[in-house]
Amino acid sequence: MATMKDVAKLAGVGVGTVSRVINKNESVKESTRLKVEKAIKELNYTPNEIARTLKISQSKTIALILPTIWHPFFSELAYYTEENVSKRGFKMILCNSSSKKEKEIEYLDMLKQNKVDGIIAITYNDIDRYVSSNLPIVSIDRHFSEGVAYVTSDNYNGGKLAVNKLIENGCKKIAFMGTHNERNTDVDNRRKGFEEESISKNIEYKIFDEIETGQDLEDKMEKFLRQNINIDGIFTINDFFGLRVIKILEKLNKKIPKDIKFIGYDGVKMSYEQDFIMSTIRQPVEQMAKEAVEMLFKMIEGDYTSKKVKLPVYYIKGDTTIV
Amino acid sequence: MATMKDVAKLAGVGVGTVSRVINKNESVKESTRLKVEKAIKELNYTPNEIARTLKISQSKTIALILPTIWHPFFSELAYYTEENVSKRGFKMILCNSSSKKEKEIEYLDMLKQNKVDGIIAITYNDIDRYVSSNLPIVSIDRHFSEGVAYVTSDNYNGGKLAVNKLIENGCKKIAFMGTHNERNTDVDNRRKGFEEESISKNIEYKIFDEIETGQDLEDKMEKFLRQNINIDGIFTINDFFGLRVIKILEKLNKKIPKDIKFIGYDGVKMSYEQDFIMSTIRQPVEQMAKEAVEMLFKMIEGDYTSKKVKLPVYYIKGDTTIV
Repeated sequence: MATMKDVAKLAGVGVGTVSRVINKNESVKESTRLKVEKAIKELNYTPNEIARTLKISQSKTIALILPTIWHPFFSELAYYTEENVSKRGFKMILCNSSSKKEKEIEYLDMLKQNKVDGIIAITYNDIDRYVSSNLPIVSIDRHFSEGVAYVTSDNYNGGKLAVNKLIENGCKKIAFMGTHNERNTDVDNRRKGFEEESISKNIEYKIFDEIETGQDLEDKMEKFLRQNINIDGIFTINDFFGLRVIKILEKLNKKIPKDIKFIGYDGVKMSYEQDFIMSTIRQPVEQMAKEAVEMLFKMIEGDYTSKKVKLPVYYIKGDTTIV
Repeated sequence: MATMKDVAKLAGVGVGTVSRVINKNESVKESTRLKVEKAIKELNYTPNEIARTLKISQSKTIALILPTIWHPFFSELAYYTEENVSKRGFKMILCNSSSKKEKEIEYLDMLKQNKVDGIIAITYNDIDRYVSSNLPIVSIDRHFSEGVAYVTSDNYNGGKLAVNKLIENGCKKIAFMGTHNERNTDVDNRRKGFEEESISKNIEYKIFDEIETGQDLEDKMEKFLRQNINIDGIFTINDFFGLRVIKILEKLNKKIPKDIKFIGYDGVKMSYEQDFIMSTIRQPVEQMAKEAVEMLFKMIEGDYTSKKVKLPVYYIKGDTTIV
């Protein structure tokens, strides 16, 4: 019996394209669609056969690639990812990439060899050329090239929300503080939302935004804070960067939330039972994991239609703001 | 060609026993050893054949079973376990058991069916009867029935160390506070070490030790602290329980470390880069993961000789003690 690969070969297209034609994905060019349909007819192929073939190839395993599991944001994400994967009778392989490109590529190879059925990845490496849109891969936080599916939180509106919450807390002069990766990622929109909302609300603001791998960051942060000593509200790129800023503020004898209101991003907690470590813009981690797994399983079943999910964030009042 | 199973069948023993005979493990009874050797001879079997057979059955995957990955102690352990497993060219499946027995048993079944090559588990369930000593399983923290291998930190000496550190900090009346599981686990030795060292050093001490699943724990803790208001040093069963005690102490207007010195157990950090959350008796997590993986791979290769590792703990001075 012919396989889906035979259809792809006869039509001169990729397996993903065949799957998209079967799933009536409108992104397929008309001429391509006709070629695939012709091949399906010639080989006497039916979608049921294809589904069966797909099922046989299943390792019933997906891989989750994270920079490190030893971080509460990633461990929460892993917790909920495993929960959703497990509900479907699948297992989850965990990979700490330590941001090493080679380790990520190794898993992509496993996927191509059907040793895993799909990948959910948080990666900040430039591995776009290893990733094709025909593979079941869902990216979280950043996106790869256009073709790759992703789930992200609404970073832009998160930045805007932070400005409005600082204003509600009575702040008059605010700052964004953070670092960025060499590559553009969706995370950059946190700063963008912050800046545009500050302009729109006509509040004075300062920006500290250094490259992540930069030298003497702590010194630069302290210098920035000393030069802008009358800042009364700070939004940081994430909670952990916030902890670094708070240490410097302690050194400068600034009291939080008395002298300075403080809002982070992520909404990390050490565990389910613990408190949030600061006031924060919370990413809906549980829902992000759920959406990523759902999207991935659709792809595993051959449906490559839904590709982009942006989930709303919300404000959590912790100990570092008044309201 | 005969398999290792055939040898086991002919000798009327388990596969693990055959492997122990081949590896010259002295724990095998003389009469059993003779039966196995006879079967090996009859089937014309050689250890090399066995090694080859074992290798073919390898899924190159091990499973790590944790109550939850969303906890810094477990995520650190998972981080180092994956690192060590990955060095050997294996993958690590992560399972959040949520302390559910069924999920743990599901993985034991996978092991029996060779879908995974070994299991490292932190479990507090009564699953001893599902576990046999012939399977590559390493338990961390608690132990199963006698036959199962384990890696643990030196809980008893950890309890003793805490007493001595509180004394060094000038404490005159100290308390152990914690909860325990219905089943005895090695963790109980933290309290035992604390009590025996307090007696030996002739320091006044109190014990708060409730069953984990008990009701109104916070009320009971507060009552205990109010009744023993002159306590000036506390050791808790773990850091997270310590956080609960600290909240109550804040309510009682007790300052740490001024009024009360405080030592936890575990040594959790939110991530590699963060600080320890309190003064603590640190479990050597990195080394525990390394030992557990080493022991597991020896078993996977058929060597069931080394079964018990107890690793030394050490004191970390955090913000909740003076020295």
